[in-house]
Amino acid sequence: MSEITAQAIQAQKAARFLGTTSSELRNHALLGMAHALTHNQDEILAANAIDLVDAQSKGTSPALLDRLELNAARLKSMSESLKALSLLPDPIGEVLEGSTLSNGIRLVKVRVPIGVVAMIYEARPNVTADAAGLCIKTGNAVILRGGSLAHNSNMALTRVLANAAMALGMPQGSIASIESTEREAAEELMTLHDYIDVLIPRGGAGLIRSVVENSQIPVIETGTGNCHIYIHGTADAEMAKNIVLNAKVQRPGVCNAAESLLVDESCYRTILPPILKELEEHGVTIFADEPSRALGAVMRIEQASEADWGTEYLDLKMSVKVVSGLSEAISHINTYGTRHSEAIITEDYAAAQRFVNEVDSAAVYVNASTRFTDGGEFGLGAEIGISTQKLHARGPMGLAALTSAKYVGYGNGQIRQ
Amino acid sequence: MSEITAQAIQAQKAARFLGTTSSELRNHALLGMAHALTHNQDEILAANAIDLVDAQSKGTSPALLDRLELNAARLKSMSESLKALSLLPDPIGEVLEGSTLSNGIRLVKVRVPIGVVAMIYEARPNVTADAAGLCIKTGNAVILRGGSLAHNSNMALTRVLANAAMALGMPQGSIASIESTEREAAEELMTLHDYIDVLIPRGGAGLIRSVVENSQIPVIETGTGNCHIYIHGTADAEMAKNIVLNAKVQRPGVCNAAESLLVDESCYRTILPPILKELEEHGVTIFADEPSRALGAVMRIEQASEADWGTEYLDLKMSVKVVSGLSEAISHINTYGTRHSEAIITEDYAAAQRFVNEVDSAAVYVNASTRFTDGGEFGLGAEIGISTQKLHARGPMGLAALTSAKYVGYGNGQIRQ
Repeated sequence: MSEITAQAIQAQKAARFLGTTSSELRNHALLGMAHALTHNQDEILAANAIDLVDAQSKGTSPALLDRLELNAARLKSMSESLKALSLLPDPIGEVLEGSTLSNGIRLVKVRVPIGVVAMIYEARPNVTADAAGLCIKTGNAVILRGGSLAHNSNMALTRVLANAAMALGMPQGSIASIESTEREAAEELMTLHDYIDVLIPRGGAGLIRSVVENSQIPVIETGTGNCHIYIHGTADAEMAKNIVLNAKVQRPGVCNAAESLLVDESCYRTILPPILKELEEHGVTIFADEPSRALGAVMRIEQASEADWGTEYLDLKMSVKVVSGLSEAISHINTYGTRHSEAIITEDYAAAQRFVNEVDSAAVYVNASTRFTDGGEFGLGAEIGISTQKLHARGPMGLAALTSAKYVGYGNGQIRQ
Repeated sequence: MSEITAQAIQAQKAARFLGTTSSELRNHALLGMAHALTHNQDEILAANAIDLVDAQSKGTSPALLDRLELNAARLKSMSESLKALSLLPDPIGEVLEGSTLSNGIRLVKVRVPIGVVAMIYEARPNVTADAAGLCIKTGNAVILRGGSLAHNSNMALTRVLANAAMALGMPQGSIASIESTEREAAEELMTLHDYIDVLIPRGGAGLIRSVVENSQIPVIETGTGNCHIYIHGTADAEMAKNIVLNAKVQRPGVCNAAESLLVDESCYRTILPPILKELEEHGVTIFADEPSRALGAVMRIEQASEADWGTEYLDLKMSVKVVSGLSEAISHINTYGTRHSEAIITEDYAAAQRFVNEVDSAAVYVNASTRFTDGGEFGLGAEIGISTQKLHARGPMGLAALTSAKYVGYGNGQIRQ
């Protein structure tokens, strides 16, 4: 038996025990894990330093290096997140519904852990601690497969977190990372349908696509966000400008940042030039259709290609297109979007209602920035990712997304007629 | 573009319109579909007759022929089911939760259709009408791929149902069956991740396994049920006998029938012999471990092999094993079961609680037959299958299992700080 299969079997065993632990025990374990992160700071930062040197020698971009880097402040923040998790209400055991059947069976549907959660993600060590915490909170075992650039950091974090959890009564195998950084290891993981209940990929579009195409385990797709702002003909010009600016430049590298701007034919001549100017001033490169370019509003404006409509830039870039009206805007979004977050700016009641009904995305806004699609903003308390599929969970996934349900029937001898 | 891809694109287009239709319109369409089934009886039965002759010439088993056969009474019953569906409350549009965020955005989470549902199933024409009805009810487009033995029946049913739905305002492509009976057609269907939102296989373990292994579309696994009855040492002997008999023989070919009986060492000598005798009288072949056989209670009792513990017989067969107690029973069920339905027969409070907590199945019963795991029995009104996975839906899947959710945020210019 391979090492990975053995880990998955161990995780399933751990999950069966975890599912029976009390909230109190799991919350204590989270506090222990929080303490261990700061207590073992030197060990974790030493491992991270090896990864950083290695990544630098490979010519890794500054943005990626920044995501990879740990320091005392970041460890402290990860530790605080685990403490905050311990204070959230426990979803496990919640009775979702129940009734007494006509034959007298008392039937309840109760929230239970999913079992074994696997995560495949890129070189972001903070995801290791977040995922371990969220899974312990919800009584799930977790198998982590982080990006190879963060390998030493992840192994150190996992060792520290798993030991702390075990010391406080969590079973062996509750938190595990895959040792091998080979591609084959991830491929093997995706076949372990008998032991792993769900696989959550977090990362770029390529990673997610590869997991969706190859996994035999149920997948929750997350995160790719080609988000749109649509300025309707009745929009308030100032509000439109503020929302576009916020959605594009406040944090361009995240999935709920806007990538594409659609503007009605009836208002683009007046409403678009000041927006383009502000975008330019904030360093945004614009990829625009012919009518927008013909406005001559800004110097740096490229010709948009068909590919631009479908691109998630995650950068200070934005595509801009003039549309004939609401129908074309909805159709464009449903064609090129990734079903993440979209916003309409309008003063028209009927247009707002049609937009929210017909746009097929996890989150749809009227007169607000797409940047609000986030577990924290939605009041979920913690988030394991943002689902862009329609099964199981959609949009920001909080603790409830890491649970399943079980029917329990209490009878006194009932048989079926 | 292949015919199947074209169908999937058409279905996605249909789904976008369907998602905006009123309950009233969808319920009218269901009534029209119900009427069309009886009105076009001759056409449907003629197509079914071709399938039946063909199936007989291939030496199909009487049980399968029975499932394949349509007649006036069965069409009438399918028609009644569609009428009953039209009377159920509409889950679409239900507000699942909502709040006003601190920045003033009014956020609601609303129930929406999934989009495009695909089903792959065996030669049971009634599934064609059921699935079409459940999907229209929930505003989803459906692509059906039935077993090749029922091909003519399915094509006739789909034609009749789709025409009736279209005549009452449902868009073209809302209900479609795949014309090709080739294996490649099903394989192609499983790759159409961009157009199909969920794939539900219904049928034997082999069919479901193949879909789970090959589909790139999110799958809801259904139906395989290696269900257990565990007789605890404190069980009431008469209740135990009645429940075992009911769970095994009342309808042995269904997924919630019991396949395996576990009996405590402390009571098997007295409690098991009368149960084995009754099973034998009802024509059940028993595959038993050594201690059960040594009782000499019945004539027809085979030696159980390791494979028997993992077998879903779907027949008048049952495996029987003596266990040392509750822990072994739970561990046996979690090892060999299919996470469908299990029951404990006990008078002991703590044993009952431990069993329902630790057995990892969709439905767990105390002192009741496993045969109750069923949408109708659970009061769901209609059922598209029984999920044996933990994601999205677990246990009997009613209308809600065919829905997703969307977040809608109503703002007045909010941007993220």
